[in-house]
Amino acid sequence: MAIELYWGSGSPFAWRVMLTLEIKNLPYESKLLEFSKGDHKAPEYLQLNPRGKVPTLKDGDFVVYESLAIMAYLDRKYAEPPLFGKTAEETGSIWRIISECESYLVSAGDKVVRPMFFGKGLDKVDEIHQAAQTIRHELSMLDRQLAQADWLAGARISAADIAVFPLIQLLLRAAGKDAARPFNLGFAPLPKNYPNLAHWAERIEALPNYQRTYPPHWRS
Amino acid sequence: MAIELYWGSGSPFAWRVMLTLEIKNLPYESKLLEFSKGDHKAPEYLQLNPRGKVPTLKDGDFVVYESLAIMAYLDRKYAEPPLFGKTAEETGSIWRIISECESYLVSAGDKVVRPMFFGKGLDKVDEIHQAAQTIRHELSMLDRQLAQADWLAGARISAADIAVFPLIQLLLRAAGKDAARPFNLGFAPLPKNYPNLAHWAERIEALPNYQRTYPPHWRS
Repeated sequence: MAIELYWGSGSPFAWRVMLTLEIKNLPYESKLLEFSKGDHKAPEYLQLNPRGKVPTLKDGDFVVYESLAIMAYLDRKYAEPPLFGKTAEETGSIWRIISECESYLVSAGDKVVRPMFFGKGLDKVDEIHQAAQTIRHELSMLDRQLAQADWLAGARISAADIAVFPLIQLLLRAAGKDAARPFNLGFAPLPKNYPNLAHWAERIEALPNYQRTYPPHWRS
Repeated sequence: MAIELYWGSGSPFAWRVMLTLEIKNLPYESKLLEFSKGDHKAPEYLQLNPRGKVPTLKDGDFVVYESLAIMAYLDRKYAEPPLFGKTAEETGSIWRIISECESYLVSAGDKVVRPMFFGKGLDKVDEIHQAAQTIRHELSMLDRQLAQADWLAGARISAADIAVFPLIQLLLRAAGKDAARPFNLGFAPLPKNYPNLAHWAERIEALPNYQRTYPPHWRS
């Protein structure tokens, strides 16, 4: 039975899973949910994922949601190439980078992305500036890390890269919105502000089938 | 070389690692940091963990921080008993529960715990009530899950139980503070409000050496 992936265009969390599937060269059936039509709140979907969020993966009879959980499942089920490390030390470092991303980049990112995309909360100027500062600090730390190695956890691509990349793309897209101009967020242009991150992003974009993972509605 | 654990009393994240070490029966050297003395911001500690947070684990030459990363490292290095599942499906379900805990319980918990412990932000009444509602919803979901099995991910204790338990203890402690009274949080008493969660907590408290993991300053 084919793997089915329920996802939404522009969700960085769904993007993580698509990158994982492509890197592991796993064929899957795409189930694109339209947020605007409420597909993610439809009863059939809530049976798979009671939280009504994306992504959700169905592999035969097994259903799992939450992007990192799907990635951990896929890595255990389909071992090659290993994305959570070949040694305990690699595993620890990869999860450390992922945890830092979840704890610092995701929550600060949310406070910037939402206002820029949906215009809601643009009046919380101080909160946005503070979150942007946190994000710039995190980007600097990632950039310094990438001065030492091609990938966040060392010599090979890992789940750390896959977890972080879509969030950075989302931040860059938010920074390109008209609403972002007065805030002078300082994320873009990546090659000027964070050159190592820019080269790393190019390496990910050069992966086979990367284009299949790119959010379709971002093209237009 | 012994495992060294840098921790702080009352940190639910450090507590996770202590439970992991005890369940795996791993001896370790306790390095208790005093937050009030600023131990976690001392230069020697920042060399181990530049974020100045707890926990941090040192195993020989290898250093890792962020509680879930430490747990993943320990599980890979010291396999028995396996805490992240014996099959890919178990691995997926365990990380799914952990991710849900991180995404929903941790952030809502923070909005309630901080005001009750430190008296700061008690005026954000709506935010506290909203967070408390989220928490009650999450506790209900966990309670329902535990009606079906002894442990969150099924028949055996796993990293999911270890990740969730200290947060629930922290919430209960926050709910017992004087400042919490007017908010009528509805978390405690656990046996009345969430009977399955209460039985599950008793199972964890009955683990060998559980007492060694209990926050020392909570006893007084």
